[in-house]
Amino acid sequence: MQSYALTVDKFLDHAAKWWGDREIVTGGGGRIGYAALRTRSNRLSGALEKLGLRVGDRVGTLAWNTQHHLEMYYGAMGAGFVCHTLNPRLTVAHLAVMVNEAEDRILAVGAGLADMALELVFHCPGIEAVVLLDSAQAELRAISDRRTFAFEDLLVRLGEETKWGDFDEEAPAGLCYTSGTTGAPKGVLYTHRSNYLHTLRALQADAIALTSADSILVAVPMFHANGWGFPFAAPAVGAKLVLPGRQADGANMARLIREENVTIAAGVQTVWQSLMDYLDATGGDVPTLERVLIGGSSCPDALIERMEQRLQARVQTSWGMTELSPLGTAAPPRGPERAVGAGRMPVGLDMKLTDAAGNALPQQRNVTGHLKVKGASVVDRYFKAEKKALDSEGYFDTGDLAMIDDDGNLTITGRSKDLIKSGGEWINPGEIEGIIGRLPGVGLVAVIGKSDAKWGERPILIVEPQKSHTIDDKTLLEALRGNVADWWIPDQVIQVAHMPLAPTGKIDKNRLRAEYATA
Amino acid sequence: MQSYALTVDKFLDHAAKWWGDREIVTGGGGRIGYAALRTRSNRLSGALEKLGLRVGDRVGTLAWNTQHHLEMYYGAMGAGFVCHTLNPRLTVAHLAVMVNEAEDRILAVGAGLADMALELVFHCPGIEAVVLLDSAQAELRAISDRRTFAFEDLLVRLGEETKWGDFDEEAPAGLCYTSGTTGAPKGVLYTHRSNYLHTLRALQADAIALTSADSILVAVPMFHANGWGFPFAAPAVGAKLVLPGRQADGANMARLIREENVTIAAGVQTVWQSLMDYLDATGGDVPTLERVLIGGSSCPDALIERMEQRLQARVQTSWGMTELSPLGTAAPPRGPERAVGAGRMPVGLDMKLTDAAGNALPQQRNVTGHLKVKGASVVDRYFKAEKKALDSEGYFDTGDLAMIDDDGNLTITGRSKDLIKSGGEWINPGEIEGIIGRLPGVGLVAVIGKSDAKWGERPILIVEPQKSHTIDDKTLLEALRGNVADWWIPDQVIQVAHMPLAPTGKIDKNRLRAEYATA
Repeated sequence: MQSYALTVDKFLDHAAKWWGDREIVTGGGGRIGYAALRTRSNRLSGALEKLGLRVGDRVGTLAWNTQHHLEMYYGAMGAGFVCHTLNPRLTVAHLAVMVNEAEDRILAVGAGLADMALELVFHCPGIEAVVLLDSAQAELRAISDRRTFAFEDLLVRLGEETKWGDFDEEAPAGLCYTSGTTGAPKGVLYTHRSNYLHTLRALQADAIALTSADSILVAVPMFHANGWGFPFAAPAVGAKLVLPGRQADGANMARLIREENVTIAAGVQTVWQSLMDYLDATGGDVPTLERVLIGGSSCPDALIERMEQRLQARVQTSWGMTELSPLGTAAPPRGPERAVGAGRMPVGLDMKLTDAAGNALPQQRNVTGHLKVKGASVVDRYFKAEKKALDSEGYFDTGDLAMIDDDGNLTITGRSKDLIKSGGEWINPGEIEGIIGRLPGVGLVAVIGKSDAKWGERPILIVEPQKSHTIDDKTLLEALRGNVADWWIPDQVIQVAHMPLAPTGKIDKNRLRAEYATA
Repeated sequence: MQSYALTVDKFLDHAAKWWGDREIVTGGGGRIGYAALRTRSNRLSGALEKLGLRVGDRVGTLAWNTQHHLEMYYGAMGAGFVCHTLNPRLTVAHLAVMVNEAEDRILAVGAGLADMALELVFHCPGIEAVVLLDSAQAELRAISDRRTFAFEDLLVRLGEETKWGDFDEEAPAGLCYTSGTTGAPKGVLYTHRSNYLHTLRALQADAIALTSADSILVAVPMFHANGWGFPFAAPAVGAKLVLPGRQADGANMARLIREENVTIAAGVQTVWQSLMDYLDATGGDVPTLERVLIGGSSCPDALIERMEQRLQARVQTSWGMTELSPLGTAAPPRGPERAVGAGRMPVGLDMKLTDAAGNALPQQRNVTGHLKVKGASVVDRYFKAEKKALDSEGYFDTGDLAMIDDDGNLTITGRSKDLIKSGGEWINPGEIEGIIGRLPGVGLVAVIGKSDAKWGERPILIVEPQKSHTIDDKTLLEALRGNVADWWIPDQVIQVAHMPLAPTGKIDKNRLRAEYATA
């Protein structure tokens, strides 16, 4: 059969040929068809070549979900450069480590981020040129010692048609660092092949199931793990692509859904909570919305129910990771069966549950284990790492603890690094947190291990009550009795006014441990 | 990212793990879950190894759509052997050429085909052993000089667990010969990679869109181009797989659809005509059926309408070829948009329309051109051919003439070899046949070129009226006036009682030409 390289430029070529007028819309301004976007992205590749980039070189992007950012994705990847997405919510110090390790030669900067970029460039001598996306040119200041271009000027001055896809499918296409909330951030270098196969895997009718009839609102940032793959999946099927720009607040989401007839919306649950709050406050509905895809963290059943009621749309849960490109599992996108946990594993990813020592559990169902995965879109070794991040059977350790039910639905029950070892046995804080989190009046909850002379560690429970609620410690502990083993019940309850949060919005267990975990 | 070979054994592994109890049902007997089927197929691989097969060796199958045939697919492919499907509707002489060219070492024989196999083996000295599938052991005779096994005996005696997928993704997996109605049959050697990618391409929500909630009746024979890929697609998503066995008549189809709650049925249109005739004769409906996938030839709009009315199911048209694994285009599987022509091109196949000299047409829409395609599941060179079957840009010439409308729907308008050159210009018989074929009273219709001293060739029209209908020649020709160029209108009309048909059921234009085309 033909040798036909699986490269992501083929997705945009396909869209340009078959869905040339289908739109990419940016909230706050900008509307273009796939054919025109393909021409511009390709000319951008030519411009980047003129700036001296060579196949394999990295282009950093510090940007929101906009047309320019998408053009930078394809402008870089199509010509064989690597699009290295940077999260503007991290500190400059963190970002500088990533940019320098990645050896980014170009930095593309989105609206409102020029100040941050100025500071970042100062710490990153390898950046040769800065490209200002969106309206960032309006904020232009002296990023004095680097060549600086407004995006449209760059296209006009240096843009030129060039050849795409002239490299092997194993060539790198994208680079994304894990959040690094614990330990040093680690880079995941996606290849064209891994992105292509991830896209086909996601497009299955039992997975994300995007079609040409869809209008997809991508609320998940494009700097998070390929924007969950929608920058590839949407052109691959000719779906209308709606990018919210800088503002992902409820009002903006509601407006975009209504104006662009959005059928599928994808993002973390807090975005949809904001949308519901906005709708509750202002009234009205989002009648075209058929489905909300959520990921990033597990979503309580009560919230799923509230979302399905309020939005009159199906909630599709999912689980993924930066290291998985990111899709792992997904609940069914349609049909009578509703979301259970994070859904099921579409073909293309192998999986096993192991014990702490890495041995496959004899029984893979209805017990918690360490989740290990294998697949064409799973990390092999971290960027510039010497060693592979795989076990002897080639599986990657997700660091997640998970349980699978009889129907194959996966539920993430915790993180292995959060496990507490008490008297030589493991306690999973996630399971305790799940029970406490469902109690009325409980806001945020965390269970951590505290050193203990006799047992090694013992669990302690830290709770932030909801505003104007009080709960007594005994009620909390009583709720656990009968639902977990007696020796899992925490020795101590600490109620706090403000739970410490990491930049990603997750509870910062490192800070909790520093404060409470030593005897 | 990880090196993860795209091999088809992973589909059955996936089904065995996640959909172990989901059934494969054979019409006329047999019901098994994917987990058990996987175990048996893998033990079959071990048996084939004990028979001396080595990676790359070919196993011929002369068989219907049954569980044993499916087990032979995976038993062969999983261990790296090539499953060479043979069409029992061809002559022994034709089959012997294929078996000998393929150097099949084993021949698997389905129910009712033992006599044919006996004759075939006589002409094929390379066949070392014969495996009798289904109930073929009941028909066992002396295939005297070859080792002969009943399938179940083989499993019991030589079956042994073995390792699957221990080869490169470019390793060959299947072999299928084109029908060879014109010229020598040509073999297409599918690889694991091409089959894997074909499967993911087909599973897209905008393509075949099979899901775990489906029960799929595969009426297309498994000896036709991978059974349209369902032996891979069904386990890849955990769909229930319904195989009709030897009988693909209307009564049997109706019974299977009703008993097995079939949601999707796939096959050529004549099968569904038989089903409708049966339902008309006996009454009753097929309420679980949601969708009928048709391919193999273009389907008149009137028949599509009749099918959708009578079966209360959506008709999904498609176009494909043995050389394409076979899926080319497909109409949308759901949504408000109905089938137009053979539907659209899902991502993964590139396409161009050219003139007769192979130059891309400047305008690719609303004009007829020669259809050329490129993709990971498209033939590169025919089996044992010296030369590639591709043009200088790497495209395969389908031999089809096609037109694409503004919405991207493809309509096959004829075959390039049937084109008639008259006065230096081309006439497409397919377009004339399309118009005549829609006239009341017309059964079958063919237009061929007859040598002409002045023009080179001139078209003549050959018509088989429907039973107990008469049509006068003038009416036929008048119907063309204004719908095709005047010089396209045939010079002569010949009405025949019986149109000659090739073994595939298509009109045998070679015989027509032999009889009528010389002046």
